[in-house]
Amino acid sequence: MLKQLYELLNTHYDEMVSIRRYLHQHPELSFQEYKTAKYIAEYYKKLGMPVKEKVGGNGIVAKIIGAKQGKTVALRADFDALPIQDEKDVPYKSTVPGVMHACGHDGHTATLLVLAKVLHQLKEELAGTIVLIHQHAEEYAPGGAISMIKDGCLEGVDAIFGTHLWATEPTGKIQYRIGPIMAAADRFEITIQGSGGHGAQPHKTKDAIVVASQLVLNLQQIVSRRVNPLHPAVVSIGSFVAENAFNVIADTAKLIGTVRTFDETVRDEIEAEIERITKGTCLAANCSYKYTYTRGYPPVVNHEAETKFLIEIAKQVPDVTSIEEAEPHMGGEDFAYYLQHVKGTFFFTGAKAEHVKNPFPHHHPKFDFDEKAMLIAAKTLGSAAITYLANHGDVCQTPLRRSDV
Amino acid sequence: MLKQLYELLNTHYDEMVSIRRYLHQHPELSFQEYKTAKYIAEYYKKLGMPVKEKVGGNGIVAKIIGAKQGKTVALRADFDALPIQDEKDVPYKSTVPGVMHACGHDGHTATLLVLAKVLHQLKEELAGTIVLIHQHAEEYAPGGAISMIKDGCLEGVDAIFGTHLWATEPTGKIQYRIGPIMAAADRFEITIQGSGGHGAQPHKTKDAIVVASQLVLNLQQIVSRRVNPLHPAVVSIGSFVAENAFNVIADTAKLIGTVRTFDETVRDEIEAEIERITKGTCLAANCSYKYTYTRGYPPVVNHEAETKFLIEIAKQVPDVTSIEEAEPHMGGEDFAYYLQHVKGTFFFTGAKAEHVKNPFPHHHPKFDFDEKAMLIAAKTLGSAAITYLANHGDVCQTPLRRSDV
Amino acid sequence: MLKQLYELLNTHYDEMVSIRRYLHQHPELSFQEYKTAKYIAEYYKKLGMPVKEKVGGNGIVAKIIGAKQGKTVALRADFDALPIQDEKDVPYKSTVPGVMHACGHDGHTATLLVLAKVLHQLKEELAGTIVLIHQHAEEYAPGGAISMIKDGCLEGVDAIFGTHLWATEPTGKIQYRIGPIMAAADRFEITIQGSGGHGAQPHKTKDAIVVASQLVLNLQQIVSRRVNPLHPAVVSIGSFVAENAFNVIADTAKLIGTVRTFDETVRDEIEAEIERITKGTCLAANCSYKYTYTRGYPPVVNHEAETKFLIEIAKQVPDVTSIEEAEPHMGGEDFAYYLQHVKGTFFFTGAKAEHVKNPFPHHHPKFDFDEKAMLIAAKTLGSAAITYLANHGDVCQTPLRRSDV
Amino acid sequence: MLKQLYELLNTHYDEMVSIRRYLHQHPELSFQEYKTAKYIAEYYKKLGMPVKEKVGGNGIVAKIIGAKQGKTVALRADFDALPIQDEKDVPYKSTVPGVMHACGHDGHTATLLVLAKVLHQLKEELAGTIVLIHQHAEEYAPGGAISMIKDGCLEGVDAIFGTHLWATEPTGKIQYRIGPIMAAADRFEITIQGSGGHGAQPHKTKDAIVVASQLVLNLQQIVSRRVNPLHPAVVSIGSFVAENAFNVIADTAKLIGTVRTFDETVRDEIEAEIERITKGTCLAANCSYKYTYTRGYPPVVNHEAETKFLIEIAKQVPDVTSIEEAEPHMGGEDFAYYLQHVKGTFFFTGAKAEHVKNPFPHHHPKFDFDEKAMLIAAKTLGSAAITYLANHGDVCQTPLRRSDV
Repeated sequence: MLKQLYELLNTHYDEMVSIRRYLHQHPELSFQEYKTAKYIAEYYKKLGMPVKEKVGGNGIVAKIIGAKQGKTVALRADFDALPIQDEKDVPYKSTVPGVMHACGHDGHTATLLVLAKVLHQLKEELAGTIVLIHQHAEEYAPGGAISMIKDGCLEGVDAIFGTHLWATEPTGKIQYRIGPIMAAADRFEITIQGSGGHGAQPHKTKDAIVVASQLVLNLQQIVSRRVNPLHPAVVSIGSFVAENAFNVIADTAKLIGTVRTFDETVRDEIEAEIERITKGTCLAANCSYKYTYTRGYPPVVNHEAETKFLIEIAKQVPDVTSIEEAEPHMGGEDFAYYLQHVKGTFFFTGAKAEHVKNPFPHHHPKFDFDEKAMLIAAKTLGSAAITYLANHGDVCQTPLRRSDV
Repeated sequence: MLKQLYELLNTHYDEMVSIRRYLHQHPELSFQEYKTAKYIAEYYKKLGMPVKEKVGGNGIVAKIIGAKQGKTVALRADFDALPIQDEKDVPYKSTVPGVMHACGHDGHTATLLVLAKVLHQLKEELAGTIVLIHQHAEEYAPGGAISMIKDGCLEGVDAIFGTHLWATEPTGKIQYRIGPIMAAADRFEITIQGSGGHGAQPHKTKDAIVVASQLVLNLQQIVSRRVNPLHPAVVSIGSFVAENAFNVIADTAKLIGTVRTFDETVRDEIEAEIERITKGTCLAANCSYKYTYTRGYPPVVNHEAETKFLIEIAKQVPDVTSIEEAEPHMGGEDFAYYLQHVKGTFFFTGAKAEHVKNPFPHHHPKFDFDEKAMLIAAKTLGSAAITYLANHGDVCQTPLRRSDV
Repeated sequence: MLKQLYELLNTHYDEMVSIRRYLHQHPELSFQEYKTAKYIAEYYKKLGMPVKEKVGGNGIVAKIIGAKQGKTVALRADFDALPIQDEKDVPYKSTVPGVMHACGHDGHTATLLVLAKVLHQLKEELAGTIVLIHQHAEEYAPGGAISMIKDGCLEGVDAIFGTHLWATEPTGKIQYRIGPIMAAADRFEITIQGSGGHGAQPHKTKDAIVVASQLVLNLQQIVSRRVNPLHPAVVSIGSFVAENAFNVIADTAKLIGTVRTFDETVRDEIEAEIERITKGTCLAANCSYKYTYTRGYPPVVNHEAETKFLIEIAKQVPDVTSIEEAEPHMGGEDFAYYLQHVKGTFFFTGAKAEHVKNPFPHHHPKFDFDEKAMLIAAKTLGSAAITYLANHGDVCQTPLRRSDV
Repeated sequence: MLKQLYELLNTHYDEMVSIRRYLHQHPELSFQEYKTAKYIAEYYKKLGMPVKEKVGGNGIVAKIIGAKQGKTVALRADFDALPIQDEKDVPYKSTVPGVMHACGHDGHTATLLVLAKVLHQLKEELAGTIVLIHQHAEEYAPGGAISMIKDGCLEGVDAIFGTHLWATEPTGKIQYRIGPIMAAADRFEITIQGSGGHGAQPHKTKDAIVVASQLVLNLQQIVSRRVNPLHPAVVSIGSFVAENAFNVIADTAKLIGTVRTFDETVRDEIEAEIERITKGTCLAANCSYKYTYTRGYPPVVNHEAETKFLIEIAKQVPDVTSIEEAEPHMGGEDFAYYLQHVKGTFFFTGAKAEHVKNPFPHHHPKFDFDEKAMLIAAKTLGSAAITYLANHGDVCQTPLRRSDV
């Protein structure tokens, strides 16, 4: 059946491209993806497939119910764009000023729509259900995943798979990782309240700049001393602002920063440590502070069995030329939430054409990707879904061999 | 003769007040005091006194040449205003939006003009010359003193006296100090050039915020470790700016600060130490920096004999009720330059009326002072000039006794 | 053949125990293991096996040359003891005051000797050669491995396997790790040369304590800012000494610390960064410094294929009850050098008996281990050697199945 | 009468020298000056003067009661030695191993004894009483002054004068200072209690070295930010000890330091600030601490009128060639306590012979001083006492003129 899948996908590659280009020209910002949502829903409706709209916001959930009973597997694609001005010189350039699909979500959506169409054609042979989760608002916390889950998109789902097209890795490569693959990305703000005054009279003041500077240095010890050296963590202060005349002493200073972790315990620990260190540093200087810590997405933690299963799946896909372990990414992704509820894995699908030497990174105004990669993503996700159902959900079973196709 | 001086000044007190109020209503910013300069010059011209205009800019120099030969003594008053909106509710409020005599220079000028008129009336009895220096631009470095001196205002001058009306000390008090009475007030800027990047990838960056924070702490050691503890010095960072998104690492950070000293050697030392510390701190972090150090006025260092002379003079002035040693002020004053060329002293004349409990400080939008203090300032400066000439410039001689008056 | 191996080993278990106990009673310090070396050599000589003494010092190399030609596989055991007073109350307690086998090298040696005897009995069935490396001086840098390799112990060797009995993991468990399993453990010393003086006159001194304190803080940034957060690293200052009277300022301060890394690039980077930071910190304070960095053993980096091979081997060993991935250990081990020359893997063999609740850690005066673990280590190493030769050195081939035994 | 005083002192100079040399050969440590005390008491007894022994310990108080009634003035000399090995090569070298008069107290005592003898000869002309305070234990806190005062040595005393021979200023110079002339010299200890561990596992520890290093830096801010820059203060850490193996993390770190101030308010403030900063720094690191602050002598604060009186006195003394204001000394002196109870002044008497280029400083094993200075000290103290009584205790009266002598 996989052979059939691959052939059908090959046949529909042009449609995939044209959907992607249409979406690329009509990007919408996170939580404002009304037209994109409608476009997706219409696609399913035209195919006569069951589709649910406004799931947890602008989310869309469609289903392919196989002829035979079985497990339920979900595939997810996100569809929001970014507040970036498209600076590419291509015919499918964004038509919306200041908004752009600079992360490849247009590709994710095109991939899943066409894959769904093809799987729908194969439904007579499927034993179980495939849920197609089209998620809005991945780029902007709190993200769409959390509300779609709350609204039931994972009900009955046994496993989930998702991928990100990755424009800086060559097309043909699949990158997996067991355990944490993307970091928790949190934000914190600390305002030091000193007591300002004249630059010549430090003894009448509490110098907020000196206190905040100490704090910046003290915070370095979280990573160097407090966190297990085997557990990656980053604490960075991105912004330090205490703007005054040269001859005053600062009344307040504001620090804004980010914390990256791959482990919830470490994350909790750091949130608490920042406060402890701030409290002590302020006490030493007789100052007060305001501290807020805002959690972004949790780390994406892939399940072992499902990831190993995906590796085996990827080996069968004809266009996949290499499979390697990814280093964890420090960026965030709200696919994390799905994996807190059901088993599954998130992987990267290389999307750099051979002739491209220095690809623009994601979120760059000239970002683009190799559209061929969509076909590979579709084949990999499709094989995973089919095989998962065929195995009755047992990922430890040897998957269908390529020769079985 | 002093008795005569005091009586004449009493008689002209109303004029002093009206000049002061006129000037208060027509303030001009430093280096833009064209009308004020003209007003001063006209005053002397009407009296038929020799006057030189445009001395080193908007400066005015008038002279009283005594009937007999002798020494030359100078009295100085400044006449520029500040970029502050007058918020007082008085009839003589500033008529110029955003400009205000918030430091009392209007009073200084009124005092000196009327004192000059009176001394001019006594010139037959004077043995020597009195030079009246009306200085522009005291509030804004490089100040007017330096260019007036260059333009010859101190030629032939043997000694100089000046005062500042001080609105937070009671009227009747004279404050003197041998040696440093006002600080050198310098400004410095340091820009740390790191190498920015993503907040999650510190190893690919050179974090300018961390380096600048270290620098702020290291600079504390100048005062705590490098400068002789018996020599007062202040190094303050007033401004620390590295404004960025939460998830980046800062490319640059800018510090702006001030240095206050009373001793030129300490001042030189600190200028060099800031650079050494910045250089080392940047070397440790593989960053570069830009450092500029801009000298404000030097410290006002009063001469011992002239200050002691002034104390004795003040004792004779009927309205002076207390004479005390001032703690050094950390503020700056370009009277400092005159004292680098000729002997002299600079003192404070209390100008807080008895009924005022919480006077607004100098440079405050509601700043005002007790006009009675102008009379005391005039009497003290006038006595100093007359006695100095009478003593043939020997400040160590016993001054005229009050009983001699 | 593996079945035969296991049976023979079971039969000789008592001998293993008695050898271990004899060695335990007669420990020798690193580089002084003359009697132990002689004991080992005699054992082989009695068996009529080829043995080479004084290899790179006190090292011993014996060989089992199989009946058929084939690959060459090495097994390694270390045999030095520690300068610790044995405080156990057992009949086989150390008889040498202040010297003790507190790390299990007696067990390693007993395991390898008896395993060698058994394999020697099976040599007619072996296709290739087994090299038995008895290494002296593992506990004390520069260690014995480096000189034994220089002296040829790895000549002709295709792969090497080694294990460490681990007294805090249960008997029956095998712990493996692909890639770095033990850290590079380096030592550094920094002496800050300031300029001392009286505590009341900081301006006449260069305060070594302040500079060294700054340095301690600045060094925190190596881990927090300079090293890739995905690459574990530790920089710790263990000792800070500047001992003086209360009323002086320190002339010098001495820091001693350790660096732990799993990656040679990171290691080089940190060695250089410590110097850069020290240099800059001293420049800022106009001080000088002396810096020495002494490398301990490199990280033990297991090869992937050989480690996976070992996992499969371990699955066959009847007494192995669990196999799990180890977290990297921050301790050092000079097995690292062998793996820089030939393929291989180093693993941990659990050696905590079920009834032991709180085992004493390695290097503790009451350290002991479950002798049953020697049998498991022997079976695992023996299976690895036999299977490796049987596969003609191809570790990717499916190993002999348990059912094939 | 002063003329007579000077002549008599000149006549007895040889005795002064021989007493000084005898004492120099027989030094005794603080609180152990039994023989020296006896020697002093015997001297007075032989003269038939009233003397009280064991005042507040080893202190001696003698009295000269003038023929006429009047005020009471005290003169003080200290007589303890130091635990230093005399390394001078002179006939009068210390005969006590490891004990030496390395600060000139032998000279102070010889000066006062001979001055007392001479004043006793003039008692018929004195109107009032002169109290001779021979104080033990100046070198070692809590010092002898405090117990002698408690024991009544100041009863009835109206004013006190004291001097220190100063071997680094030329003979003939008198140094005075109104207000603080010698600092308060305090001692503090801080022990940081972290939680030790292995150098490779910082996350399981609380690193006492890092915390103590932070603390050293934070304490710099007391002088740079908290204390009025016009008030001299020093906070120095003289000792930082956390001695461990290279591969551990320190459990504790101990800091010992000194604080120097000239103002009791600043002193109190600093004692409290050190604790606040320590507390906050420890809180930030979740550590605990032990802090002790031990007060040494308070600052020596000279009274204005008595100091001015002394200046006028010194002008009359024939051998005094220069009189200058001293910079405050950062060293301590328990003369401070007397000045907390009665008016008075403490001054320095230069004691460097003209031919000496690089005098050894006080407390140096080769310390010595120009004995001629004793004569000047005696004349100055004697004149002060006589004139004070002659003025009936009014220091503001013009002292006897040299021509009046």
